[in-house]
Amino acid sequence: MTDLKTYAARVEAALDRLLPETHAAFQAGQAPRLLSAAMRYSLLAGGKRLRPSMLLAAVDMLGGDADMAMAPACALEMIHTYSLIHDDLPGMDDDDLRRGRPTCHVAFGEGQAILAGDGLLTHAFEVMLRQALVRPAALNRQVAAMLEIARGAGVAGMVAGQCLDLQADRGEMAGEDLLQYIHRHKTGCLFVAAMAAAGRLCGADDADMAALTGYGRHFGLMFQAADDAMDVTLTAEQMGKHPGKDAADGKLTAVSVWGLRGARDAAARHGAAAIDAIARFGDRAAFFVELAGRHQAV
Amino acid sequence: MTDLKTYAARVEAALDRLLPETHAAFQAGQAPRLLSAAMRYSLLAGGKRLRPSMLLAAVDMLGGDADMAMAPACALEMIHTYSLIHDDLPGMDDDDLRRGRPTCHVAFGEGQAILAGDGLLTHAFEVMLRQALVRPAALNRQVAAMLEIARGAGVAGMVAGQCLDLQADRGEMAGEDLLQYIHRHKTGCLFVAAMAAAGRLCGADDADMAALTGYGRHFGLMFQAADDAMDVTLTAEQMGKHPGKDAADGKLTAVSVWGLRGARDAAARHGAAAIDAIARFGDRAAFFVELAGRHQAV
Repeated sequence: MTDLKTYAARVEAALDRLLPETHAAFQAGQAPRLLSAAMRYSLLAGGKRLRPSMLLAAVDMLGGDADMAMAPACALEMIHTYSLIHDDLPGMDDDDLRRGRPTCHVAFGEGQAILAGDGLLTHAFEVMLRQALVRPAALNRQVAAMLEIARGAGVAGMVAGQCLDLQADRGEMAGEDLLQYIHRHKTGCLFVAAMAAAGRLCGADDADMAALTGYGRHFGLMFQAADDAMDVTLTAEQMGKHPGKDAADGKLTAVSVWGLRGARDAAARHGAAAIDAIARFGDRAAFFVELAGRHQAV
Repeated sequence: MTDLKTYAARVEAALDRLLPETHAAFQAGQAPRLLSAAMRYSLLAGGKRLRPSMLLAAVDMLGGDADMAMAPACALEMIHTYSLIHDDLPGMDDDDLRRGRPTCHVAFGEGQAILAGDGLLTHAFEVMLRQALVRPAALNRQVAAMLEIARGAGVAGMVAGQCLDLQADRGEMAGEDLLQYIHRHKTGCLFVAAMAAAGRLCGADDADMAALTGYGRHFGLMFQAADDAMDVTLTAEQMGKHPGKDAADGKLTAVSVWGLRGARDAAARHGAAAIDAIARFGDRAAFFVELAGRHQAV
């Protein structure tokens, strides 16, 4: 079994390759130096590369083409990173620390951070589309995979969750239904997209697609409940961001709705459900069983 | 010949159809009401629909499939609109008036405006990818068209121009080369993308592609020089935004570099070059000859 660390290292190398790099301040047909620098600063800041690794692992599990999977995997990470950059902006969560470093707008200014996010989101699709044309025989599967990613990142997916998260922050709405919607969309949709895109790349049938997306959905809910719990239990050094900020900001979280024990229970419950969902793949699902098991207990 | 007004009306109807609409504040699998409202507010604010109309007209000129062209055309307008929303943000140009109405962040708050822009950009790709799967036989051409749009909007395209425009605003850089780079990328790349995407959809050969993109490039330079000139000559009512703001902000514009007469000369020169570029299509290019002629004189 290939482990998370190995997948993450492959993703790391591919991200570095797929990002623009320029040495001049500006040059026709090339990304400007400042833009590349801001994108690289945030994208190559040492994330866990969970989403792209899950996509790669699912393609391996299904016996698909690993080469074809790399561009969509990296695109997912670019999209995840753009969402963090924009989420940290003063007009949104106003965070100054991320992965142990100043956030993008602190390092590059607000306008450039907005553009770095816009650039990463657009680049995600540019990279996928360019790579898809390299394998014209599998175009249909690749377009279907890209659509899963666009949908997961989109206005009924991740952006939808962000929109309501922001309204909840402002105290405009609250409640358990809202919390579930936010976790499912803000966090869950990109995990679902990782699994669904892998399924599409491999031409998975409906039953396999349901198993894959079921894992993604429960993994996302587990992940966010665990993240909310860690916000109240870990130190800044352990987290790479300010702990306790959620509570200080009066955020709607699994802990604020269910209490710390309730949040931990939810994480454990969804972790078990994720493992159940993927059971049909038997031993081939070892990566996913281990991954859910590791995040389950917080 | 189909005129701009007719194309724009078709685009208007399609945009309305392609945007999410929800009645509930939030509902599983749907865009939240506030997000839809902010996206609709900015996208359906009565723009001229130049870019999508050019794409549709070029497909007509080349004898291509008009139905297949509508999703990429609308995607271009979504991308153009997202760039205006983000450009107007306090962290960028800080504008409060656009097309005669309060800008998106004034109407919906800064965070929601960031998300409305992110949503429109993502939705552009979601819509194109979904529509592409409807015509699997022409997938190759459609993916090539999407790539032209992603590239035009991307980190070596429109976003690159925005990045340097922002640096120029802050007085970090100046000069005629920089001005040209900004105009070419910030404004020109989406016009080039409109023409190039049309060419790809129709399987245009290299000579036709060069003519199409040549028109787009010169049209963009003409358009931006004319826009800069109008900023100093028109009233707020005529423009729908604050006139004279460029000069007040010390912006790098065609007028600040070449003077008003120089900017007008540049517009006329690039208009003529655009018409030259498209000459190989003869009478079939009437739409484009008229369009350039109309913007040439300011």
